[in-house]
Amino acid sequence: MKVGVVGLGLIGGSIGLALRDPSREILGFDPSEANAKLALDRFCVDRLAPLEEVAKAEIVFVAAPPLHVIAVLDQIAKLRGEQTVVTDCTSVKAEVAAWAVRTGAPWFVGGHPMAGHEKSGPGFASSWMFRNARWILTPVKATDKAAVKQVEELVRAMGAVPVRAKPDAHDRQVAILSHLPHAFASVLVTLGEELERTDVAAGSWRDLTRVGGVDPDLWSQILLGNRTELTKVLEDAERELAALREALQTDDRKAVRAILERSRIAKKKQEA
Amino acid sequence: MKVGVVGLGLIGGSIGLALRDPSREILGFDPSEANAKLALDRFCVDRLAPLEEVAKAEIVFVAAPPLHVIAVLDQIAKLRGEQTVVTDCTSVKAEVAAWAVRTGAPWFVGGHPMAGHEKSGPGFASSWMFRNARWILTPVKATDKAAVKQVEELVRAMGAVPVRAKPDAHDRQVAILSHLPHAFASVLVTLGEELERTDVAAGSWRDLTRVGGVDPDLWSQILLGNRTELTKVLEDAERELAALREALQTDDRKAVRAILERSRIAKKKQEA
Repeated sequence: MKVGVVGLGLIGGSIGLALRDPSREILGFDPSEANAKLALDRFCVDRLAPLEEVAKAEIVFVAAPPLHVIAVLDQIAKLRGEQTVVTDCTSVKAEVAAWAVRTGAPWFVGGHPMAGHEKSGPGFASSWMFRNARWILTPVKATDKAAVKQVEELVRAMGAVPVRAKPDAHDRQVAILSHLPHAFASVLVTLGEELERTDVAAGSWRDLTRVGGVDPDLWSQILLGNRTELTKVLEDAERELAALREALQTDDRKAVRAILERSRIAKKKQEA
Repeated sequence: MKVGVVGLGLIGGSIGLALRDPSREILGFDPSEANAKLALDRFCVDRLAPLEEVAKAEIVFVAAPPLHVIAVLDQIAKLRGEQTVVTDCTSVKAEVAAWAVRTGAPWFVGGHPMAGHEKSGPGFASSWMFRNARWILTPVKATDKAAVKQVEELVRAMGAVPVRAKPDAHDRQVAILSHLPHAFASVLVTLGEELERTDVAAGSWRDLTRVGGVDPDLWSQILLGNRTELTKVLEDAERELAALREALQTDDRKAVRAILERSRIAKKKQEA
C-alpha cells in the first residue's frame, strides 16, 4: 500500500514514522527542501516524490500549515488517483469542512490528531506521537463511508483512537482544550519576562508554560483560523479571571473558595 | 539530632520522609488525628509527640496551613528549647517576615519549598518531593546567620537547593510563578465544564490543567495570603489576554504573530 504525506513537519513526519512498515511505502512531499531532506534523513518517509506522484497514493495525509491547506487540497483534487482517499490534519475544521461541502468530494475526510509537541519540524517527529491520542474525524454528508473507514484503519495503525465530531463542535472544543491553554502559556511566559530567574519555580510553572514558546508562524495561523470560537472563549476566560481578582480584592474568602471548589469538582468529573 | 515537623500534610509529611535517617529522630505533630496517624503509618515521622515536645527539637519545620502559621509560630515561640531553630513553609512570605521583624526572633528563618503536588495530605507525601527543587529562604535583619546555615544544611539534605530572597520580591515572584498558573488551571477546568468529554485533548490540556483541582481550603488561603501581588498580576494577565483577543477579533495577523514571537523569545530566555 502506498501512503502519501504532504507536508513533512512535526505532524507529517510523525505520521510517516508511525506508519512505516514493510507492508506500506511512505511517499513524502514538502515544498521546503530542508524539511524534506531532514524528514528523509530521519526515516520519516521511504522516499521523497513530486506532489504529482504523492497525490496518487491510496491514501494521502495533508499536514500543511493551516493557511495553505485549502490550496493544497485544491491541487490534490486535480492530481489524485481515481481511488485516492485524502485526509488533513488541520487543527480547525470549519473552513476545511466548508471546502468539503462546496466541492462535494466524497474521497475527502477532515481530520485532526490531538497530539503535538512544543517544538516544530520533522526534527521532533516521533513514531509514538499518536499513541493513545484521540484522532478526530469530521466527515460531512458528502463523505464516502468507505473513505472514513480507510482513514480510521490507518489512524488505528498509528496507535491513535479515531473519534468522530461535527466540525463546529470540534472547533469550539479545541478552542477550550488546546487554543486557550496555548494562549495562557504564552501570557505566563510573557509575564515571566520581568523576573530575574524562573528556575526557582515548581512543577506548576513548568507544566503551564511548556507550550509557551511555540512557533509564532504556525500558531498565529492556528489561532486566527479559529478566531470566532477562540474570541468567545477568551472573553469567558477574562470574565472568570476578573471574578477571581475581584474576590481577592474584596478579601472575600467565601467567593475565592467557591471558585476553587467549582474547579475542583470540574476537574474530578473530567478525570472520571 | 531531633527534627520537629509541625503540620503533617503533603509538605510536612514529605519533609519527614526526606529527612529520615539513622542520624535523625523525626518528631511529628498535627492537630488532626487522622493526618497524624496517616503520616505515622506512611513512615513520614519516627514518632508522634505533643507540640510541647516537638517544639523543643534542634530544628522545627512548621508546615501549617497559611491561616494558622502565625498562631503556630506564637505557640512555638513560647515552647521552644533554648537552641531550637524554627523555619516555616508558607508560600507567601510578607506576613511571616513581618512577624519575624515584630518579634525580632533570631532563631526563626522564613522558608518556602518550591515543590508540591496537585493532591493534598500525607497520603501523597514523598521522600523525593524536594529533589532539585529550589527552597527559598527569606531571613530578615534580626535573623541569626547560624540559624540560616542550619536550615540550609537540612534543605540540602532533602536534595533541594537553598536560595535566598527578600520577602516582598518573593511574593511577587510566586504570584507569577505559582499562583497565576493555579488560577489559569482553575479557569481552564471550569471552562471545560461545558464539554461532554475532555479525553480527546492533547498534552497541552493535560499539562495546563494538572493543578486545576487543588484543595479549595488550602488554596483559597494561599491566594488570599498573596492577594496584593496576585491582584496586580491578574490585572496584567487580563490585559494580555484582551490584547490577544482584540488582535484575533480584528484579524490582525501581524499583531497575533508579534504576541507569540514575544512569548517565544521570553520562553527561550527562561530556558537558558
